[in-house]
Amino acid sequence: MSAPMPVFLLTDFGARDAYAGQVRAVLAALAPGAPVFDLTHEVEPYAIGEGAWLLETCLPVLPAPSVALAVVDPGVGGERLPVAVRVPDGAGAARYLVGPDNGLLSALAPDDARPERPAARPLPAGVEARRIESPRARRASVSATFHGRDLFAPAAALIAREGGIEGLGPALDALTLLPPFAGVPDGAGGLRGTVAHVDRYGNLVTTVRAEQAPPAFTLEAGGHRIGRLVRTFGDVPRGTLACHVDSSGFLAIAEREGSAAARTGLRRGDGVRLRPR
Amino acid sequence: MSAPMPVFLLTDFGARDAYAGQVRAVLAALAPGAPVFDLTHEVEPYAIGEGAWLLETCLPVLPAPSVALAVVDPGVGGERLPVAVRVPDGAGAARYLVGPDNGLLSALAPDDARPERPAARPLPAGVEARRIESPRARRASVSATFHGRDLFAPAAALIAREGGIEGLGPALDALTLLPPFAGVPDGAGGLRGTVAHVDRYGNLVTTVRAEQAPPAFTLEAGGHRIGRLVRTFGDVPRGTLACHVDSSGFLAIAEREGSAAARTGLRRGDGVRLRPR
Amino acid sequence: MSAPMPVFLLTDFGARDAYAGQVRAVLAALAPGAPVFDLTHEVEPYAIGEGAWLLETCLPVLPAPSVALAVVDPGVGGERLPVAVRVPDGAGAARYLVGPDNGLLSALAPDDARPERPAARPLPAGVEARRIESPRARRASVSATFHGRDLFAPAAALIAREGGIEGLGPALDALTLLPPFAGVPDGAGGLRGTVAHVDRYGNLVTTVRAEQAPPAFTLEAGGHRIGRLVRTFGDVPRGTLACHVDSSGFLAIAEREGSAAARTGLRRGDGVRLRPR
Repeated sequence: MSAPMPVFLLTDFGARDAYAGQVRAVLAALAPGAPVFDLTHEVEPYAIGEGAWLLETCLPVLPAPSVALAVVDPGVGGERLPVAVRVPDGAGAARYLVGPDNGLLSALAPDDARPERPAARPLPAGVEARRIESPRARRASVSATFHGRDLFAPAAALIAREGGIEGLGPALDALTLLPPFAGVPDGAGGLRGTVAHVDRYGNLVTTVRAEQAPPAFTLEAGGHRIGRLVRTFGDVPRGTLACHVDSSGFLAIAEREGSAAARTGLRRGDGVRLRPR
Repeated sequence: MSAPMPVFLLTDFGARDAYAGQVRAVLAALAPGAPVFDLTHEVEPYAIGEGAWLLETCLPVLPAPSVALAVVDPGVGGERLPVAVRVPDGAGAARYLVGPDNGLLSALAPDDARPERPAARPLPAGVEARRIESPRARRASVSATFHGRDLFAPAAALIAREGGIEGLGPALDALTLLPPFAGVPDGAGGLRGTVAHVDRYGNLVTTVRAEQAPPAFTLEAGGHRIGRLVRTFGDVPRGTLACHVDSSGFLAIAEREGSAAARTGLRRGDGVRLRPR
Repeated sequence: MSAPMPVFLLTDFGARDAYAGQVRAVLAALAPGAPVFDLTHEVEPYAIGEGAWLLETCLPVLPAPSVALAVVDPGVGGERLPVAVRVPDGAGAARYLVGPDNGLLSALAPDDARPERPAARPLPAGVEARRIESPRARRASVSATFHGRDLFAPAAALIAREGGIEGLGPALDALTLLPPFAGVPDGAGGLRGTVAHVDRYGNLVTTVRAEQAPPAFTLEAGGHRIGRLVRTFGDVPRGTLACHVDSSGFLAIAEREGSAAARTGLRRGDGVRLRPR
């Protein structure tokens, strides 16, 4: 029998409670020997979109095979389905996603398979999904408010141990997807986007992909106009703002050894606009 | 030789220092191959009661065998004893607890074996404890202020590797226990409790166990009267408070996609009162 | 083939992003089976000196062999070199350090080999270093702003797997070192130091080593004069400040179950002065 897959955790559980700890305990109990790694537990509470964006930045880096257990789940215990997804890596292996069917797992689909507004969409070719309902993929007693521990962790453990999602429950042919994280044409030759994430350094990462940007542009954000595109933080003049391509390919705004978020007052979800020059 | 047990960490060390990191390093050095998992390191500094409550919520979820290394230790280097405890799981295996004898490890005893005020109490039947004093269970040099690294981690490593507490030091027949985390009858048919923990979402988890509550009740807390008991967060009306049974069986107060703590101003330790209706 | 070495992470990535998570994913992909442990990710952003101090407190505790992957890297993508270092442990094994050559790895050198100001210095006897430039020690595409993921993690994985730094790139004979973390004679029989780190409990850890202090002294810090040296926190009177020897051998200022940082207003980098009595 092969070694159990590594399991990666991405949640809004935070660190001050033992919620993530209890998930780790269940994984240790049900998939002994499976390495368990944190992606992050600091998604803003209930912020499905931020969680989906963070998961999308991580997915290409995850080993295959591996399981990503993702929980940002304001509807826990309600009607949204608990699901497990197999995303082939194009080289014969796969990454598995486990979590609520609320858009959080949108990284399973490429941009062109995603809707303009959050909606159920058919699975892309090659992707398989199951509803989690097997008694083998749940704890003996399932609480109404902590499916991360009682349902998703047992399902992730089962995948890590057995190597597939077939035994988890019935196949699904559609899942909830969010719009692509990408700039949207503004009808005037430019792009509209939003701040997808404010990182620890105060960098403002936008939803505009670098590959969408024309050779020369101005990025407007919160009354600031940023015309400079730099390669590294060291190329940003101190005390001024500049754009760079972040490590996942998105346009981002930084201040060298300072906080672009503090300087601009911009927050997650605020709009940005890119205009060609 | 069997694989080393997993070790779970629960401390007030926080994340900004390398204290938890040094504990992990000692475990990696002394019990190579033992999986190490965080329960939480964000117990409020010196808050033994909060640490004990968090450990109690985790203990039933931990695999057996495993070791829980718990450190909330304002009396470090003083007279409180460093101890290791074996708590049988009822199925022939055991969970081990390592930490200071200051009430933090109270989860070792069922409610009916616990005192009305913090006090030393005889061990429940089947539970065994040792004072940690073997030179094999300490680093070559033991600091006065960091027994987590110098004493408790080596002891946990020894248990994880060797599978028992016999070699750690002399047997103990009593340990410090806190009162049970449970509502206390108020003499008028109701129950008094406190806020045991404020979680990341602002949910107020009380010490009142759901099984103690009558079918219909009002929970009074900080001038608020909450009469609604819901099953999931989705059943809580936005902008109002409701009670639910939290994932460890305690009554808790939540606001849907909001913070009950922010709305009520209640904090850990504040009183709540449950009255039957 | 022997088991891969454990890898320890020390960064300023924080927890709210998935940067540390992506590093863990790369390690899991490139060094399967290597245990990965956090030292801390909460170094203040860009604070090379704090990161160097924290790494120095951890290094003696790390198992040998092991790899410490350290990233506090304001110059990422610029001219500072990515390096890997082998530090012998004096018993035939070694600890490996991976990170930017900006002073962060200063723990590789004993105090007497370190300069008065940050500067390149010859390697101490027995220490070996390589510039990381092999295509085997980098991801297929290297971003300009995230060498932790694209360069340092692959290099650490290679060391963990193969047990040495020889294959990483050309040998280096000098690295950037910071001044020693130690008190500096003030010319009047005393010592000048700074606050190296404020810990979670509000303890102020200074750069003055306990072994430098005379038997009786007064520590002056932010207008406070502290004449009392205690062994444990329990010996500190409530509501007053006292000195103790911290768990890494530095003089530190504490308030019992309180915050010396809050009481004094002192912060990292502020000066302290020790005068003999």
